[in-house]
Amino acid sequence: MTHTLVLLRHGESEWNAKNLFTGWVDVPLNDKGRGEAAAGGRLLREAGVLPDVVHTSLLRRAISTAHLALDEADRHWIPVRRSWRLNERHYGALQGKDKKQTLAEYGEEQFMLWRRSFDTPPPEQDPADEYSQAGLPQYADLGDDMPRTECLADVIVRFLPYWESAVVPDLREGKVVLVAAHGNSLRALVKHLDGIGDDDIAGLNIPTGQPLVYRLDDDLRPTVPGGEYLDPEAAEAAAAAVASQGR
Amino acid sequence: MTHTLVLLRHGESEWNAKNLFTGWVDVPLNDKGRGEAAAGGRLLREAGVLPDVVHTSLLRRAISTAHLALDEADRHWIPVRRSWRLNERHYGALQGKDKKQTLAEYGEEQFMLWRRSFDTPPPEQDPADEYSQAGLPQYADLGDDMPRTECLADVIVRFLPYWESAVVPDLREGKVVLVAAHGNSLRALVKHLDGIGDDDIAGLNIPTGQPLVYRLDDDLRPTVPGGEYLDPEAAEAAAAAVASQGR
Repeated sequence: MTHTLVLLRHGESEWNAKNLFTGWVDVPLNDKGRGEAAAGGRLLREAGVLPDVVHTSLLRRAISTAHLALDEADRHWIPVRRSWRLNERHYGALQGKDKKQTLAEYGEEQFMLWRRSFDTPPPEQDPADEYSQAGLPQYADLGDDMPRTECLADVIVRFLPYWESAVVPDLREGKVVLVAAHGNSLRALVKHLDGIGDDDIAGLNIPTGQPLVYRLDDDLRPTVPGGEYLDPEAAEAAAAAVASQGR
Repeated sequence: MTHTLVLLRHGESEWNAKNLFTGWVDVPLNDKGRGEAAAGGRLLREAGVLPDVVHTSLLRRAISTAHLALDEADRHWIPVRRSWRLNERHYGALQGKDKKQTLAEYGEEQFMLWRRSFDTPPPEQDPADEYSQAGLPQYADLGDDMPRTECLADVIVRFLPYWESAVVPDLREGKVVLVAAHGNSLRALVKHLDGIGDDDIAGLNIPTGQPLVYRLDDDLRPTVPGGEYLDPEAAEAAAAAVASQGR
């Protein structure tokens, strides 16, 4: 028996479009992003890949993407689980900064290190920063777990406990599981599933709004490495667009 | 200590606007309904009535209303619970029929009996009817509980077990609870809370998109009978509009 896991990165947000580092800043989808989410839902419906349960982050761009995609797939009624552990990587002091300007200011090497290095986080964010989430009620229970910056390695550390305790049990019960989340929380998951090395994960870009379907064996290893996009051509074009951000 | 319960009837749907009996037919909100939902969320935010958990029916007009209202109130991230027991009353063979035409065809007395009688359900729906929900996956577990028609008394019978087992425990934990549902499932709840008699409930109309806040004592009795609308004037106008449907 194979288990079915669907990953969906949120559609374009108001800050994706403005080319700002977002991280945990809770910006909404824009019209394009809402359209991407609905289109992702249509792909699910047409492929007959029908989620039985959805896991989202606590950020509204993932929550809205899940809502719009599931509504389009006639699966709006399924159970919903949410966790901060599916949130985007915390971008530290870069949150709210312009990507192009950051590239110009710090240079290509530092810029790519912050964006894609496995274990170099951006500078820490001051909790008094206007783009800090310290003090928001949805994070009140985090205590010392509340990040002030994160690298991808940090995301993996906080994501995996949720994977094991909340997502895997749903898969083991035979449910089709949708994870609606973010570029870096999904990269953390893909790295784990496909056993991608710390150096190689830098080159992996996950496109927005494109359902990525993993069929997993009983050891929860992908039967097809890298999974399968429901619309491979669109996914390839979208991933290339993500890779060129900041240019 | 008082417990806070917020009731929110979904905004206008495509079939409300067309004046059709809807029941379990899963029609979406229209633009006006989406606006009502967001306005309801703004009222919650402005009043500082911030839900900690939301319960919805399995119908998309309630699910979307909850999503839009909570997003507007910055509470999009709270836990979500759903149950068919919060669904609108099943309107039996009337589902999909025009209200005005039904009124003309059957006369005022029969029409009001079907709409407002406590214990007279409309004629049963044929499971092969184009507006039947028999066979939909969200209702696969219902078995013999799957209704073919319902009067308000039937709604109370299937709603109360969910109230006791799922909503009350959240209230007892001190959570602010939002119930996003429908005209008749909310009338069932209000009848229960306020101890309204079987005859008197006929006159109660719940307006769309207007948050109705109940503060409940430790016996879960309303401290203010009938609860309090966050925007009383708008709620009164909207309830009058509901009462005049089909005219």
